[in-house]
Parts: sequence; structure tokens; C-alpha cells
Amino acid sequence: MATTAQPVPPPFTAHDYRGRMERVVADAVAVGLDGGVLVTPGPDLVWLTGYQPTAITERLTLLLLSPNREPTLLAPRLERPDVEAAAGAAALTIYDWTDGSDPYAAAGEFLDPVGRYGISDSAWAMHLLGLQALLPATRYRAMTQCLPMLRAVKDDAELARLAAAGAAADSTFLEVVKLRFAGRPETEVAADLAGLLREFGHEQVDFTVVGSGPNGANPHHEAGERVIQVGDSVVLDFGGLMNGYGSDTTRTVSVGEPSAELVRVHGIVREAQQAAFEAVRPGLPCQEIDRVARAVITAAGYGDQFIHRTGHGIGVTTHEPPYIVEGEQQLLLPGMCFSIEPGIYLSGRFGVRIEDIVTVTTEGGLRLNTTDHGLAVVS
Amino acid sequence: MATTAQPVPPPFTAHDYRGRMERVVADAVAVGLDGGVLVTPGPDLVWLTGYQPTAITERLTLLLLSPNREPTLLAPRLERPDVEAAAGAAALTIYDWTDGSDPYAAAGEFLDPVGRYGISDSAWAMHLLGLQALLPATRYRAMTQCLPMLRAVKDDAELARLAAAGAAADSTFLEVVKLRFAGRPETEVAADLAGLLREFGHEQVDFTVVGSGPNGANPHHEAGERVIQVGDSVVLDFGGLMNGYGSDTTRTVSVGEPSAELVRVHGIVREAQQAAFEAVRPGLPCQEIDRVARAVITAAGYGDQFIHRTGHGIGVTTHEPPYIVEGEQQLLLPGMCFSIEPGIYLSGRFGVRIEDIVTVTTEGGLRLNTTDHGLAVVS
Repeated sequence: MATTAQPVPPPFTAHDYRGRMERVVADAVAVGLDGGVLVTPGPDLVWLTGYQPTAITERLTLLLLSPNREPTLLAPRLERPDVEAAAGAAALTIYDWTDGSDPYAAAGEFLDPVGRYGISDSAWAMHLLGLQALLPATRYRAMTQCLPMLRAVKDDAELARLAAAGAAADSTFLEVVKLRFAGRPETEVAADLAGLLREFGHEQVDFTVVGSGPNGANPHHEAGERVIQVGDSVVLDFGGLMNGYGSDTTRTVSVGEPSAELVRVHGIVREAQQAAFEAVRPGLPCQEIDRVARAVITAAGYGDQFIHRTGHGIGVTTHEPPYIVEGEQQLLLPGMCFSIEPGIYLSGRFGVRIEDIVTVTTEGGLRLNTTDHGLAVVS
Repeated sequence: MATTAQPVPPPFTAHDYRGRMERVVADAVAVGLDGGVLVTPGPDLVWLTGYQPTAITERLTLLLLSPNREPTLLAPRLERPDVEAAAGAAALTIYDWTDGSDPYAAAGEFLDPVGRYGISDSAWAMHLLGLQALLPATRYRAMTQCLPMLRAVKDDAELARLAAAGAAADSTFLEVVKLRFAGRPETEVAADLAGLLREFGHEQVDFTVVGSGPNGANPHHEAGERVIQVGDSVVLDFGGLMNGYGSDTTRTVSVGEPSAELVRVHGIVREAQQAAFEAVRPGLPCQEIDRVARAVITAAGYGDQFIHRTGHGIGVTTHEPPYIVEGEQQLLLPGMCFSIEPGIYLSGRFGVRIEDIVTVTTEGGLRLNTTDHGLAVVS
């Protein structure tokens, strides 16, 4: 197989991280978070500092970005060497706490006792309750509630990484359809997908869904021992991280010649995906993209079988704001990246989903996945 | 290599899960949690229901165990088939919510508006804030604060699994010391450890620390590109899950003949580990085990170089209560399992750590790791 050599983008520097941190402080103040934001390990911390603990444990690690002080990171003492080795460490004042001492008291030293803070969605409830108990007059809001677009608008260096990850996922699809499906368990095809994603440059594989026949009707089925049969449709939904940024694409293929029903349902999903893509433009509320996709499927009589939202954002994770869902009134902005992935799920029979990552340009949308939307026939 | 066939223990049944859930409700009421406990995806949910979402996402999944109603699990609709397939599903009343609807409103249907609840330590702050906003008179405490011993006392079926995982980790150590260390990067030895753990029956490898020379002085160093040298000490700390239960053991080895200093420091750590082990008996506060280990190391002049707690519990995770740390006054109970892992870290030079998993019996302690504590010499 011909693998395309992908140039590795230059790493982000402390300067890049400092810029992101300053932008977040300004955004926080603008929405009334006078204390700033509190960030625990996870994608926000990676994006802001380049730091990721080797494991997320019960030990408190907390970044404070505040209008009142320099960016401050509190970490367990035994993880301090790892913090100091992070790409953004030069932009941080680092404090530590030792096992047996009270981490909330240590954090309290830096907090305004009547401050309003944003806090990472995935911060542990235990840590939030510890801070609330120590400083009962502090107030907290989940980061995606108050600063939902923290990481949503990607700069050019990020877009280049997302495009490269998308191209690698497309290469994976183009190779996997050359392989035999019939007679092999789903798990084998999943392993092929994982191997190809790595071969094309992914450092991390997050999911390799292979939903054959009735398993395709469960949108969160991963891959099981079911042996794929001639006549099956197979939902292939796969992605991971490359150079720290995500891929996520889905195609549904037919093992041998498709039934008339599969062709029809696939055509409806394809039409829904296309209509939603064509609707993308700056200034449109996210929910409108969901409505466009849903309208096509509902008009065809399958509204009750499209049982999930139309899409989700992607960046340093494969699942983040903006969400393309009814009720999400956030306006699309140039640089946002998200999936458009309508589906129809016929319980006990089969499912169809088609998914591309799309970025918003100044004029409309640009696909970061470009493999054909036709119903590919595999052997 | 001769691998020992390990009998696979019979799976837990809905009956087992129902018994655990009933015990938790009784424990919750006893500590004043009149509403009961709220459990989000993670080890508590696995232990209580056998259910683990394929990925932990921003979508709310919530188990309510309350004295006022049957065990109730709320999950995203598209994950419902996975919930229904869980081993403990028959013991649950299952509800779902759909994308675009308010998951907190759905949860609120089941909650007492003035109830006191325990909530999973690792529940997302976003979800806790959502519940607090909906029902401002509810009160929450972190599970390990109010029911720290929820999973700490293991029954015989659990102990058998932990013993089997420990034996597999010991087999891994006995094999890895036969391999060449000098001239290979740490990452290669780490890959050997991971391969051996899997070969001896682990389904999941959680960590394979290989800290050679100065890297051994960072207790959370994993494994890097450093090439191991003759004369190095190497900290090997590895473990994972087998049949759903954890292993975690550490030995420090010498590549070639050890220096007099390494022999001396290793002897101190060995003495500390042995003294702490011998102190284990029901009724003793956890912190006493830490104090015993620390006293040995402090008396030898290395108190400031023992920069972490002495141990942590183990069960369906490799890191859980009880913690063996100053300030932890919880009394040891028969059936508790935890690590005893003192260490000395000489910054920039080398580190030594020795770790066994120990379970509390009616009379004292029993090691689940039994490989020799002498300083093994490898090539």
C-alpha cells in the first residue's frame, strides 16, 4: 500500500499557549466570570498548556486563569516534574501540594472567596464539592455553559492538523473497502481500521465501529463477534487523534449487491447529509443544521428512526462543542469544525449513517472528509 | 515460557449486583444520605451494575440508589441497548432521555427536591451543577467523603480475582528479569511488561513504569527513550485488570552489580515495606501503616525523599480507597485490599520502590504479591 508521508506540523510553543490563556481570561471576564476559569486535566488543559497527566486520578490538578493573577497551576507534588516538562510550562506559575495535605486549602489560597468561576465540565464532582465547602460564597458554572466556544473556533495551525487527520481517515476508508468483509467477524475489520489509522499517522485510535446487519441499527454498537454476511450493510465509523487533533468519519457499505431497501434508505441519508452540508454558513444557528438533516429524513418517513443529534464538534478531542442539535442556538463561526452525521436505524435489521467533518469558512462549509458518498460495494 | 492456565471465575449475576445495591442503600441511609446515592459511569457503576458505557461522554448517565424507589438508571436513549445488555440490568428500572431534551429535568423526576445525596467522586462537575441549578435545596457529598468504604471490603469472589491478578503480575516479574535490560530503551522493557501481563491473563494493562537511573527518582515517570545502562537501578511498577480486578506491584532491580549506596537505600525501603506489612491488622487506622513505613525511612535520614503516601486501595480499579496516608483515620477491616509501596527518590540520580498488594485478614495481613524483596540483578 502506498502511504502518503504527512509532514509533522511544528509543535505549539509557550507563546501559543500564552495567547490562548489570555484569550480565555478576556472571554471569561466578558461573560461575568470575575474570578476567571478553573481547568482540570482533560482537553481544555491540553489545549491551554500542553499538559496532560499520565493518568487522571483523584489527586487535584487545577489551572486558574484569572484577570487578577498570572496563570497558576496547582498540581500534586509528585507530578511536578511532568508539569514542568509540558510545552506551556514557561507560561505558568506552578504550585504543588503533598499527599496528606488539603488540596482545596491549597487552591483556596488563589481563589477569590466571592468569585464567580467557570470550571471544566469534566472536573470531578468531588473537587467541586471540596471548593464549594471551603468557599461557600464562590459560584461556579460549567465551562460549556458559560464559555461553550472556548476551543470551538480553530486557528489555521489547528485546521491544518484537522485536515491532515481527516485525510488519513479517508485513506483508511479507501484501503479498508479493498479488504474482504464476508465471513469475517466485525472485530477483525475493526482491527484493520485501527491498524490503517495508525499506518496513516494516527497516534491514537478512539473508536472503530463496525456495525453489520442488525448491529448497524444500534448507533453505539462498537464491533462484536458477529460474522459479516453477504447481503449485510455495514456501518464503519472510525477516528482518533493525529498530531493531537481528531478525525471521525462514517460510511455505510454493502457486502455484495445491496437490496432495493438499503439503496433507498442510504439515498435518504445521503440526501440529508448533503442538504445539511449545503446549509452551512457563518451566522446560522447550530440547530438549523440539525433541522435541515432531520427534515429530509422525516419527509421520507424515517423521522423516528433518526435517534441522535446531527453532529458534534471536533478538535483536541473527537467529541466537543459545538453540538449540532435542536436547541443549540450558538451561531456558526468561521473556523468551527464539527461532524454532520445523519442516520436511519431500523431496529433488528440494519442501519445507515454517513458522516463528514466540516469546517465553516467565510462563505459556507468545507468538507475535511472527501471520500465518495455513494454506497460502496465490498466483497 | 510456561504459562499457567488460570481458571476464569464465574461472572457476577444480577443477584450479586442486587445485593451490592441493597447494601449501598442501607449504608447511605446510615450516614444520613436520605435521598440515597447518585452514581455516574466509572468503577462504582461497574461494581454496582456491571454496566460501563463504551465511552464516557458529556451525555448524562445516572444510577439512583434510594431508600424510596427501585434502583433506577437514566441513560441516553442511544445507549439503552448497551444498558439492557449489562449483567446487572435485570436489577434495574431503566429510563432514557433523548438528545435535545434536558437530562437534568429527566433526572429531577426521580429526585427528592430536598434530598441529601452521595454522588460519584468522578461525576462531571457539569452534571452536578445541572442538578444543583434545577433543585437548589438538594445537598451533595462526594462518595468517598460519605461512603469511603463503598467498595473497599472485598468478598471472597473478589479476593479470588485480586489474588489471581497478583499472581499474574508476579509471573510477569519473574519472566521480565530473565530479559536483557542494558542497551535497550525503557519503552522496550515497558512493552515486554505489557506483553507479559496480557500473556498471563490480563485483559487491560494500566501502567508499565520503567524508571532507569535518574528517571527512577520521578515516581510518576512512565517509560521513555532513555537507554538503560549497566550500573543503573530500574524501578518496575506495573499492573492492570484481570477478570475485572486489579494488579499493581513494584520491584527495583539493579543492572549488573549494584553500588553500595543502592544496596543501602534498597535495604531501607525493604525494611520500611516489611515493617508496614507486619503492622497490618484489623482495627488499625490506615494512617498508622503510613507512619510505620515513614518512620523507618525517616530514621535512616531519607524522610524528605519519601514524597508520596504509602499506598492506595485496589479492586475494580488500580487506585481507590482506602488510602494509606497521614490523616486517614479509617480503621482497617478484614477484606480490604491496598498497596504498601514506600520509596526513596534521590533527585537526578535514582529511585527505589517496593510494592505489594496486601489484604487484611482477621489476624493480620496477607500479601497478594509474593516475589522476593531482595535486590534482583539483571543483565
